[in-house]
This record gives sequence, C-alpha cells and structure tokens, in this order.
Amino acid sequence: MNNEQLVRITRYYRALNRLRTIGLEKVFAHNLADAAGVSPAIVRKDFSQLAIHGQKRGGYEITDLIGVLGSLLGKGDPQNCIIVGCGRIGKALIHYTGFEPDGIRIVAGFDNDPNVYTDSSSPIPLYSLNRLDEIVSALKVKVAVITVPEVAAQESYDRLLKAGVRGILNFSPVTLKPVPQEDGTVVVVHNINIALELEQIFYELKFPAMGHRE
Amino acid sequence: MNNEQLVRITRYYRALNRLRTIGLEKVFAHNLADAAGVSPAIVRKDFSQLAIHGQKRGGYEITDLIGVLGSLLGKGDPQNCIIVGCGRIGKALIHYTGFEPDGIRIVAGFDNDPNVYTDSSSPIPLYSLNRLDEIVSALKVKVAVITVPEVAAQESYDRLLKAGVRGILNFSPVTLKPVPQEDGTVVVVHNINIALELEQIFYELKFPAMGHRE
Repeated sequence: MNNEQLVRITRYYRALNRLRTIGLEKVFAHNLADAAGVSPAIVRKDFSQLAIHGQKRGGYEITDLIGVLGSLLGKGDPQNCIIVGCGRIGKALIHYTGFEPDGIRIVAGFDNDPNVYTDSSSPIPLYSLNRLDEIVSALKVKVAVITVPEVAAQESYDRLLKAGVRGILNFSPVTLKPVPQEDGTVVVVHNINIALELEQIFYELKFPAMGHRE
Repeated sequence: MNNEQLVRITRYYRALNRLRTIGLEKVFAHNLADAAGVSPAIVRKDFSQLAIHGQKRGGYEITDLIGVLGSLLGKGDPQNCIIVGCGRIGKALIHYTGFEPDGIRIVAGFDNDPNVYTDSSSPIPLYSLNRLDEIVSALKVKVAVITVPEVAAQESYDRLLKAGVRGILNFSPVTLKPVPQEDGTVVVVHNINIALELEQIFYELKFPAMGHRE
C-alpha cells in the first residue's frame, strides 16, 4: 500500500463511519469515490487489490467494509494525542469535535504560561510543559500536535522526542524534520504551514499551468 | 516549474524574508536547504535551473534572491483573503500573525450567526454571509479560507464560487473538489483535514514501511 492509497483508504473509512451514523447499510463504489475525491474505477481497483468484493446486486455492506478497512488502518489501538501550545490554534483543536468519530482522543494540553494551563474551563486537562515527560509516559502518548509560536517550535519538538513521542503534526511555520532515534524507532512528522498553503493557492491561480491539487 | 519545486521556492522565499529580518545579508545553499528540509544539492539545482548564480566567495545576496524569487512567485500583487466561518478555528486564523510577513492579508470574516459577526473585538471587519457577494466584489477577493462546520462546507463553497472566489483553503472535513467554471477560470482547492493527518501519522507509526513524509 503506497501513501496515496493510504490517503484514499482513510477517506473511505471516514466516509463509511459517517454513512453508518446516518443509518445507511450499503454503499456503492461511486459513493466512496465522491467522498474521497477519486473516480469509482479507483475505488474498485483499491478494493480488488485488498481482496474486498462487492455483492451480486452491487454495492458493499458498510459494516463489513468498516471492519476490513479498520483493521487495515490499525483501528482499535488507542489513538491518544496531546496538544503542545494552548494559544488560539491549540485551543481551537482542543475544542474540535471532529476527532472522536475517527477514534482520536486529545488527552492533554501543555503550555508554559500558568495563566493558560490553569484555565479551569478547558474540556481536557492542561499542564505545565515541565510535566511533559511525566504525563507522556503515564498516558503512553506517541503523537503530539505542535501549536506553539515559531520561536518555540524546535525546542518543543526536541522535548517531545526526548519524552518518547514519535509522531508530530506541526502547525508552526518552522519546517520540522524527522530525526533518527538512537533506539531505532521511526519518527513521523507532518508539517502544515497555513501561510505557505495560502501562498501556493495564490501562485496556482496566477499560473494555472501548475495544475490544481485537491 | 513543478509543484514540488514551487513548494521549495516558497519555502526559500519565506526563509529569506526571515533571515533578512534578523539582519543577515548573505545566505548559503545549506542554510536554505535546512529551512526547506532538502539537501543543499537540490537548492543549487533549483537555482541553477532558474539561472540564479552565487558569488565567487560563495553564498548569495539575500536581497537579490528575494527580488528574483518574489517576482517568480507573483509577489507585489495584492494577496487579499477572507475567512468563511468565524468559530474557534476561524477566529484563531483571524488573530494569526504569521500571514503578514508573507504578504497575505485577511481582509474580512463571514459568519451566519449575528452573535459572531457583530463581535466588536475582532481585529478585522466581520459580516453576515448574506453580504458575501457584495464584499468579495468590492475588495476583489479571489481566495477564501473555509472554516465552517462539516454540514455547511459544500454550501459555503458553492456561494464562494458564485461570488467569484477561485482559490479555497478548506479546513472542514469535507473533501471539496475544483469545479470547472463557465467563464473558463481555474479553481484551486487545497483541503486540510486535520483528523485525517493525525490518522495517517498513527498509521505511519504503526507501519513504518510506509516511509515518512515531511
């Protein structure tokens, strides 16, 4: 399975959960194609490669598909995640309700400002950054979202790796790079640079020959 | 110039602006390589293709580079942008200070809730969604960020296209697709699905054979 196929399969999986939530039992390749932004032929090809077969009358059982794709995606494992940096973007993510349907739980937030981490209105526990090692270890956290200001990004990243976190979703404008670990574990970093995304959109509008992405 | 090269060049450009801000005058390929997360050889290859040459003693003049890359990226054009959906994520972006250094200006926010769009503490003007056509036309806005809830995403997108917006950065979990326009203009859509990014990170940690992305 390559990276593009993984993106599609996570999209199918999310669409299937939403379809099940609204009471559907069967789904067709073109439904999933719409949800994932690909052609029905690609959905059928993906499923055929994964040895998933439809029914005689056409369509797939949603519950079956969720089972197969879910085990493929490692669902059932705990997907605990922390937020480092509880400014406006961090707080928006803490209150975001779109993670739970996908089995992702934001279990704690960290900040170095006592005015921030003592905020009693937070829906999840907030801690001082000094307690990062302790909490990461206690909750067996492997994935963190970095939403600190640019100047604090590299230090936060270093501390997270030291604490044992191995997956990073980075919203700071600094491009963080995966660092080989002495214990041989893999580090995965996804950088989301919002200003850069906007710049590229302006650029692609200016020079349409660049083609569009989804 | 392909898409990957564009991403690198926007990264070089941003790094150069930051380096100039802190008073540097010269930069070396390996500085830009670090900033963009690539090897120095790739920086040199990019520059050589763009007919940008370094100096005898090594290094490039930062001001020269900013000029060349800036005109390549269409800097100097107005980069006005609006936010549709002023909930927590929309508000976080409205207050985000990381756009200005890149020449991007968030000029207005829209929401359908009067309690939201009459908020007088907002640093930019907020409007009812009913005034979208009028404001987009008056401010000649071509790019919008969609930060509405999932159920409102498609409708917001349709309204934006109708109003003449052609570039979309979509933070809702719905995958929006570029729609061919009758007037022949190009539509560019970048979808950022935060839950999906986190899911992929969990997946890549579970199956390291997938390789890591930056």
